[in-house]
Amino acid sequence: MERQVDQQLEKLKTRILKMCSLVDEQVDLSIRSIDEENPALAEIVLEKEKKVDKYDLKIDKICQKIFALNQPVAMDLRLIMSALTINTNLERMGDIAVNIIENAKLIGKKPEWINKTHFAKMAKIAREMIRNSIDSFIQDDAMLAKKVIETDKVLDNLNKENHDMLIEIMKQNSDDIQAAVALLVISRQLERLGDHATNISEDVYFIVEARMVKHKYEKYLFSDDDNDDDE
Amino acid sequence: MERQVDQQLEKLKTRILKMCSLVDEQVDLSIRSIDEENPALAEIVLEKEKKVDKYDLKIDKICQKIFALNQPVAMDLRLIMSALTINTNLERMGDIAVNIIENAKLIGKKPEWINKTHFAKMAKIAREMIRNSIDSFIQDDAMLAKKVIETDKVLDNLNKENHDMLIEIMKQNSDDIQAAVALLVISRQLERLGDHATNISEDVYFIVEARMVKHKYEKYLFSDDDNDDDE
Repeated sequence: MERQVDQQLEKLKTRILKMCSLVDEQVDLSIRSIDEENPALAEIVLEKEKKVDKYDLKIDKICQKIFALNQPVAMDLRLIMSALTINTNLERMGDIAVNIIENAKLIGKKPEWINKTHFAKMAKIAREMIRNSIDSFIQDDAMLAKKVIETDKVLDNLNKENHDMLIEIMKQNSDDIQAAVALLVISRQLERLGDHATNISEDVYFIVEARMVKHKYEKYLFSDDDNDDDE
Repeated sequence: MERQVDQQLEKLKTRILKMCSLVDEQVDLSIRSIDEENPALAEIVLEKEKKVDKYDLKIDKICQKIFALNQPVAMDLRLIMSALTINTNLERMGDIAVNIIENAKLIGKKPEWINKTHFAKMAKIAREMIRNSIDSFIQDDAMLAKKVIETDKVLDNLNKENHDMLIEIMKQNSDDIQAAVALLVISRQLERLGDHATNISEDVYFIVEARMVKHKYEKYLFSDDDNDDDE
């Protein structure tokens, strides 16, 4: 027999999946705005941002409802706590997409040297990480979560290389400073998207692994070593 | 008679207060590292970061325990959900302090023009916002929470002014680019500290105001408008 709480957890997962699609579209559009001078893109991203914020409230509310009406324990409890973390991270990713599009406006005419930088590659990796982090949650897939966590290093390195490249460009020609600074900010934002996907995946990895070693987990959950805080 | 859950909520508040002190000290030290060339500062910040991470796990665990053993509802439930949000935000602030100290290392010899920028002022405001956001949570002080939310604009403006100033400095002298980029990153990190304090305060404001209009809140909590997600 299906428990009532299972229906609600399914509803929760569906909402998270929809919110993830919205955020992924936002990131896609915001990155496209570096290449295309199209003011409509910014409008669409802001429109989607409003929807993302609505999902944030909805997911928060579904979690509160499950807590209040079902009083979940053990793994259900951990899953809802993770949904709250995922929600916070997705909402921040939406903010980052808005930030990217605002900085893209400051670039002005697209500089030729942009093709030497790693923006297209970083955007592709960041979007994959976002989708995989949510898929790992939906499908309880610890290996996929681990893959996301490992990919974060790649994104960090591309950001560092972008950083050094952009500083060199600024030194060579002061006319490029404004655009290079905007791109430096965007590069860091792409790296932060990866950080948020990693936060989600670390949580998923923990839940799924915990389910496999359930007794060990319950021992962890109810042990008293949260008293040693005066060190 | 004091409820068992009240004791646990007090314990939760004490942990959050201690975690906040640690993060505040981290931010103080990381900002001091801009002025003083003292490698020991970085070590102390990293040492505190380990403690902050431990608090993060402890607070998460106390919340899980309260959920599992007391099955809280209504306002207690909202308070624990806020504690989880506060925990996430404090942990990120610790990461930001580490990031500031890493960028401070890239500045090299402290440039003269740094006194024209707003770093000291921004650091002072950001630290006040952090402490006030946590105080507003501990003391259920909606007015203090509102003050934090309003102060965020001030920090945003100082960051924008720093940004423009630093770009001008880079244009004038390419030797200053490396230091100016590091400071530009630090300026954004200070602004993000304010964003995290604002996230906490928005949550506190919502809880305290909700307590005042409890019935309205419960109507909100249990209403069914989380079904309209297909728009």
